[in-house]
Amino acid sequence: MSSNYGITPQGENFSEWYNELVIKAELADHSAVRGCMVIKPHGYAIWELMQRALDDMFKETGHVNAYFPLLIPKSFFEKEADHVDGFAKECAVVTHHRLKANPDGYGLIPDPEAKLTEEYIIRPTSETIIWNTYKNWIQSYRDLPLLINQWANVMRWEMRTRMFLRTAEFLWQEGHTAHATYDEAETEALTILHECYGKFAEEWMAVPVVKGVKSEGEKFAGADHTYTIEAMTQDLRAIQAGTSHHLGQAFAKAFDVTFQSAEGKLEHVYATSWGVSTRLIGTLIMAHSDDRGLVCPPKLAPIQVVFVPMGRGEVWDQTLAKAKELAAALKARGVRVKVDERTKEGPGFKAKDWDLKGVCVRVDVGGRELEAGELGVARRDSEEKLTVAVDRVVDTCVRLLDEIQSNLFAKALAFREANTIRIDTWDDFVKQFEGEGGGGFVLAHWDGTQETEDKISEATKATIRCIPLEPLHPDDVVPGTCVFSGKPSKQRVVFAKAY
Amino acid sequence: MSSNYGITPQGENFSEWYNELVIKAELADHSAVRGCMVIKPHGYAIWELMQRALDDMFKETGHVNAYFPLLIPKSFFEKEADHVDGFAKECAVVTHHRLKANPDGYGLIPDPEAKLTEEYIIRPTSETIIWNTYKNWIQSYRDLPLLINQWANVMRWEMRTRMFLRTAEFLWQEGHTAHATYDEAETEALTILHECYGKFAEEWMAVPVVKGVKSEGEKFAGADHTYTIEAMTQDLRAIQAGTSHHLGQAFAKAFDVTFQSAEGKLEHVYATSWGVSTRLIGTLIMAHSDDRGLVCPPKLAPIQVVFVPMGRGEVWDQTLAKAKELAAALKARGVRVKVDERTKEGPGFKAKDWDLKGVCVRVDVGGRELEAGELGVARRDSEEKLTVAVDRVVDTCVRLLDEIQSNLFAKALAFREANTIRIDTWDDFVKQFEGEGGGGFVLAHWDGTQETEDKISEATKATIRCIPLEPLHPDDVVPGTCVFSGKPSKQRVVFAKAY
Repeated sequence: MSSNYGITPQGENFSEWYNELVIKAELADHSAVRGCMVIKPHGYAIWELMQRALDDMFKETGHVNAYFPLLIPKSFFEKEADHVDGFAKECAVVTHHRLKANPDGYGLIPDPEAKLTEEYIIRPTSETIIWNTYKNWIQSYRDLPLLINQWANVMRWEMRTRMFLRTAEFLWQEGHTAHATYDEAETEALTILHECYGKFAEEWMAVPVVKGVKSEGEKFAGADHTYTIEAMTQDLRAIQAGTSHHLGQAFAKAFDVTFQSAEGKLEHVYATSWGVSTRLIGTLIMAHSDDRGLVCPPKLAPIQVVFVPMGRGEVWDQTLAKAKELAAALKARGVRVKVDERTKEGPGFKAKDWDLKGVCVRVDVGGRELEAGELGVARRDSEEKLTVAVDRVVDTCVRLLDEIQSNLFAKALAFREANTIRIDTWDDFVKQFEGEGGGGFVLAHWDGTQETEDKISEATKATIRCIPLEPLHPDDVVPGTCVFSGKPSKQRVVFAKAY
Repeated sequence: MSSNYGITPQGENFSEWYNELVIKAELADHSAVRGCMVIKPHGYAIWELMQRALDDMFKETGHVNAYFPLLIPKSFFEKEADHVDGFAKECAVVTHHRLKANPDGYGLIPDPEAKLTEEYIIRPTSETIIWNTYKNWIQSYRDLPLLINQWANVMRWEMRTRMFLRTAEFLWQEGHTAHATYDEAETEALTILHECYGKFAEEWMAVPVVKGVKSEGEKFAGADHTYTIEAMTQDLRAIQAGTSHHLGQAFAKAFDVTFQSAEGKLEHVYATSWGVSTRLIGTLIMAHSDDRGLVCPPKLAPIQVVFVPMGRGEVWDQTLAKAKELAAALKARGVRVKVDERTKEGPGFKAKDWDLKGVCVRVDVGGRELEAGELGVARRDSEEKLTVAVDRVVDTCVRLLDEIQSNLFAKALAFREANTIRIDTWDDFVKQFEGEGGGGFVLAHWDGTQETEDKISEATKATIRCIPLEPLHPDDVVPGTCVFSGKPSKQRVVFAKAY
């Protein structure tokens, strides 16, 4: 069954709702390449706004951009043992550098004479190629810190894919920094977590996140430890929206990157790496959108306000002229606006269309309303429709955009709080995660062992999303006993089913 | 022999000068991947400025961005015959999707069980995957035009590579548009040539370009015809800086992309594609830079003005404070500034360092000069050094940036004009291109045949760069006889040795 917006309602099947929304809101499309999507202009425009905001934050915190090769020599993956297990298995392998006409028939085949002596891997992440390069860039403590970010595509041959959330190829940024000391690298990893990722999620995406450290079982392959921001989706699952890794000296040792300290000693460099990806768009959708389609926080909305002129003939000329005038005035205030000049579609169709695409505010410019001096202004986040004096429309739109941004965050925060519970018995824990639903965030005590973590996950499909850096409630850090093993525990950690 | 800037002088060996400059100015570095470079932060910052300016131009002319998959199914290349010849031969071929531990010893091997049933090619350009997608997006004339651009990495397995100019992997933008009529596609291809590429080259890069159409032998594989902008390097060669292709209906036919016209007829779509790449950075270097290092037009300079405080102790404190104050005032005027706070390096080293990196204006903040109320202001483009009253420094810098931008263009234009000659005899033509030197732009008559073009190129290594859209001189379109065959010719065309 479809709602009249042409999308399966969330409550009926969240997964179908999501997949249909992505297509119908024209955010992305399937492609002919296994597990890869096409990011359509409307979806890419959100990514561009995300990139711009994040890039500004990276630069404000002292980082610069660079670009490293797409291909990684196979042997590089053999140098860091944990990393190879995590990344070099399911990947795209380049083995030839030429095609030739098939001597046995139609088409092209890889030319056997153009077989590479060493295969290349399409980067699943760039630590290895970057640390192999840093080796030449770092000699002395004066070359440190090195604070570099790259915007790039990466590829992981995922078996089960879902648009934006998990695709074989995705777009991301990956920061790779080098430091003289452990403490400096630790500060860097936390700066990114708090001042970039956490801030971006909450202030731009309007998505509240729990900031924490990953358990050993969930950390990045090759990291000393991994920080994460975890968001809640409307189907009560967790979504890892960004990670920041303190890599210790593992990559410096694997690629022999040393520096002469101020005291003249030769030491290995400390590293961090951190990334967010087009997965953020999936997170955005799952956090805010509804049965009418995309709900986009104003700061990341490609179109913030749309004007829909109405009527025919002379009336159309008048409403269109007024729409353009108001749009120009709003644009001058820095708002991203559009005037819907389509003449073949009616106002009802258009209202739904802009709802579906996640435009934050719609101004209906009707002929009679214009004559009466008041226009209808519809908020996308609520069902609210205001009647606003024509000369107040511009100010009202600007104010509404601020309100919508705050409202979406407040709503998402209230939703997360309502779906975060503290559980102390194994029976309750199991019950909470039963069935197909998500189960929300469960704060429970854990004995700190990988063994227990694995058993809990086997039994319930819930995993430890993170050990919060700041308790969500002061009582969360009162010692207790593990919900599974009964052994002592220092603090509650966040369990959830994850995307 | 090296100049005292550590770079082989241009006059001694242009090629070595270029390679050394790229490394020493920290624009790029070699990588462990055959034919691929690392774009270092200073080089990438230029690319970011280029991207921003071009992207704004694309959007002003009605285009939007999207993203299509990196990999292209092999069979897609088999669909357009000319295209396969041009692009599918030397390319990176993905044949496996997994590595596994080598059962016969150390390391990893492509898992034979993970061999792909159809190989993928890393995109050398995206016409095929994009037109395969457009097939689903275009049904009616109302879906047209489709004006899409993508920023992406592409890969061509080049045999001889040179940083920025020709690398196996490079960064670029590729526009792919779909139109209802031939004329509309033609207008699009020309809009990009004139309003984006030509304008960008001349107004941003300060590089004069000849705009023209390619001969059949030089056009894009699969195009109806190709427009180009051609720049001159300081070693008197041509460099193709950007191309815009009218693709006719070739890709629409290969991928069966039809639309219902307003009259209800089913027709094939007309296409254009157009691209510029990180090659523009190589063009920039070869057009303006000198034996002291990079010369960057202010509009594309990552650092436009650098302040170098001098002295020690209290004097240093004063000069540093003044440098910061002036830098802040300039920054508020929208200028990209830096204060050189390094204390271990002397002013002589610093002056050379900023010259090498292409900073447009250097302000020396000396203690004695500060006391006297006048500072030394050095222009990078000329050797000129001005003495400027402290309270005039900010205004002077702003004015100088404008002047340098204009001066670089004027200088490059004068250089091109001085090295553009009209030749009417085969003897003179051959002589002009003898030896290792470039030979400049030669305007000569040509009979219009591929045969003659090939013979001229074999004999002289000079190729037809383009048939100018506007004659460089009115006499260039007075009919004459081919410089090689003596057959009739309608107009002079541009011959040059090309990068």
